Amino acid sequence: MHSTKQRLVDEGLRMMLRQGYNSLGVQALLDAASVPKGSFYHHFADKEDFAHQVIDAYTSGVHSALDACVTDTSMPPLERIRAFFRQVEQQYRQEGYLGCLMGGLGQELSGVNDAFRAQIEQCFESIAERLQTCLDAAKTEGSISPFVDTARMSSLLVDCWEGAALRSRLTKSPAPLDAMLDYYLSSIAIQGPDSSDI
Amino acid sequence: MHSTKQRLVDEGLRMMLRQGYNSLGVQALLDAASVPKGSFYHHFADKEDFAHQVIDAYTSGVHSALDACVTDTSMPPLERIRAFFRQVEQQYRQEGYLGCLMGGLGQELSGVNDAFRAQIEQCFESIAERLQTCLDAAKTEGSISPFVDTARMSSLLVDCWEGAALRSRLTKSPAPLDAMLDYYLSSIAIQGPDSSDI
Repeated sequence: MHSTKQRLVDEGLRMMLRQGYNSLGVQALLDAASVPKGSFYHHFADKEDFAHQVIDAYTSGVHSALDACVTDTSMPPLERIRAFFRQVEQQYRQEGYLGCLMGGLGQELSGVNDAFRAQIEQCFESIAERLQTCLDAAKTEGSISPFVDTARMSSLLVDCWEGAALRSRLTKSPAPLDAMLDYYLSSIAIQGPDSSDI
Repeated sequence: MHSTKQRLVDEGLRMMLRQGYNSLGVQALLDAASVPKGSFYHHFADKEDFAHQVIDAYTSGVHSALDACVTDTSMPPLERIRAFFRQVEQQYRQEGYLGCLMGGLGQELSGVNDAFRAQIEQCFESIAERLQTCLDAAKTEGSISPFVDTARMSSLLVDCWEGAALRSRLTKSPAPLDAMLDYYLSSIAIQGPDSSDI
């Protein structure tokens, strides 16, 4: 990506994570990125096109991190899931616990804009599909029950994470993220002869 | 509440659920509620004050519904929780699956406005406290393990519901809500001698 375009996308991601889409002014973005207005309209048709490209860049970044984790066979499958979310949590910490950009934009925009709604839902689906490969591997090795519906449970994991990310944004703390992940992983894992198959 | 004020609050709730706070124009609100501008500024200092009062009204409504459910001893405690969320889901359906106003405003505003952040977090905490009384009752009657941390688990329930509500908004469907609630309730309940104590 052209370095000016990259700078705009990076700055846009930071600013929209904090303040959302509607309150973001293009001029404020240009000022923050030290880019002249002409460059913005060279790279993007308008603010909406810009936001779609920010979401695409965000999604690509998540896919890279997630693909690296889910294919890391040096760890058991459920540990790969934990490792991925630890990375995400570490990023949230660096950002000051502002939660998840997709959750924020999904809430703000999906009630009035079907293009954003579809793009953000697609992002979540693509994350769930990747997580499902870990759950399928966990099923194969026997660390979760053979009766687990891995498509449903990977989607549920994404959803519960998003709720915890919102609460993390509200409390400026990682506690909701840790609580959610601990609960999910301990409730899905077969931990011993007295464990449930849920 | 004065009927004009009530009409503005009701309309504001509907409009903010769909489009959020920043994109809501006071004039559009006045037009939708058929109220002259002077009346708005008679009842509210400004748009921000208005939104705070909408959130208070929303919170009161949730408290009423929730209090009615959690004190309904004609049902076992976990069934009271299910009954409450069934009501909420029914409301989401009537609204066209737009999710939860608190989740939407929490995402949109809490990164830049500490007053909204605190008010919305307080709303979630007050809901979790009420749900906790059901979990405590479930513990007393033995339908969940005596080792469950009910404060943590009631907070987790609110968070997971919020994530499912976001996904429901994105997919315009109740499926994520049902999946979340079924999973939560079945994983926390003691269902038989082979169940886990998670």
